[in-house]
Amino acid sequence: MKIIIVGASGTMGKHLTSAFEKENEVFTAAFKGGNIQVDITFTESIENMFKQVGAFDALISTAGPTYVGPWKKLNDVSFRQGVEGKMMGQINLVLIGQNYINPKGSFTLITGALSHDPQKNFANASAANGAVEGFVRAAAIELENGIRINAVSPTVIENSPHYFPYFPGDIPVTMQQLEFGFRKSVFGANTGQIIKPY
Amino acid sequence: MKIIIVGASGTMGKHLTSAFEKENEVFTAAFKGGNIQVDITFTESIENMFKQVGAFDALISTAGPTYVGPWKKLNDVSFRQGVEGKMMGQINLVLIGQNYINPKGSFTLITGALSHDPQKNFANASAANGAVEGFVRAAAIELENGIRINAVSPTVIENSPHYFPYFPGDIPVTMQQLEFGFRKSVFGANTGQIIKPY
Repeated sequence: MKIIIVGASGTMGKHLTSAFEKENEVFTAAFKGGNIQVDITFTESIENMFKQVGAFDALISTAGPTYVGPWKKLNDVSFRQGVEGKMMGQINLVLIGQNYINPKGSFTLITGALSHDPQKNFANASAANGAVEGFVRAAAIELENGIRINAVSPTVIENSPHYFPYFPGDIPVTMQQLEFGFRKSVFGANTGQIIKPY
Repeated sequence: MKIIIVGASGTMGKHLTSAFEKENEVFTAAFKGGNIQVDITFTESIENMFKQVGAFDALISTAGPTYVGPWKKLNDVSFRQGVEGKMMGQINLVLIGQNYINPKGSFTLITGALSHDPQKNFANASAANGAVEGFVRAAAIELENGIRINAVSPTVIENSPHYFPYFPGDIPVTMQQLEFGFRKSVFGANTGQIIKPY
């Protein structure tokens, strides 16, 4: 299977690349590093990535920039970090990528428990996650040629201990659990699902 | 109670104005018509509205422009209708309005069942609704001085029969049910809730 992993230079992306490249042809894409440079906040950059890779079977996204910080600094400007990054960046990966993906291919995006289980400092991510989840459900009934779409929604990740203080009481999701979430979406048959790998 | 109704010239806004103005001081705001003109896609216009009204007790929003139409025409440009309108428009009403609202005041935004129950042609609304719902849950744990925030999430509205063909099998929400949803948020004590008035 030919798989594109967007956000491949991050903690999740590296793990998923390592896990999937043994039995698949993996193309790593990232803002810096990876086989292909991509800035998902620019549609031209996304289009360029797909042109370089050509037809593919699965796209995995772990790319989710958002504003993290005090509520008092949350305004129309800071909110755009999540709007352009985790939300529209990922949505545009699908809207553009549908023109390059093979029949019966799949898109798997990243959201997070914050959509329904908020924490202080993360309102921007709660909104971006909620937007992507709503989009995933809607896209699943619109995409043609058997193309599927799901999101993987973890809580805090075990490899990001600097975030633990912001998620009191949240049991960290292991990298293996996360991998299983993506595995279920890419190699399973479901569509329109928000997969909670815990 | 001093209540601002944004989107007051629409079907929902007119009904809610009529229902609430008997026992409250209602300020109607709309893109056209109403006591105050407001374009929620511009932060300056929102700020100007709050300056004109001064301190208030409740804000009700029924303003939700989104792109409705064929999936094939959904792209980064058409998607912005919902991003700037129903999503950031309503989010900015809260981020700016929190500086003008009285202690123990409330914000009540509009979302819709499409966040979890998609229909063809409405992926933009699914995303915008999901974003607003995620934001409402997050804002509820950040807002201070006892300020509350909820969303009312109806299915298709009985007064919009032109939408019925797009919502096969959805039992229309009556204007009275919708009114009760907003009533629960404005006059009740809950916060961070997505109220389904059916």
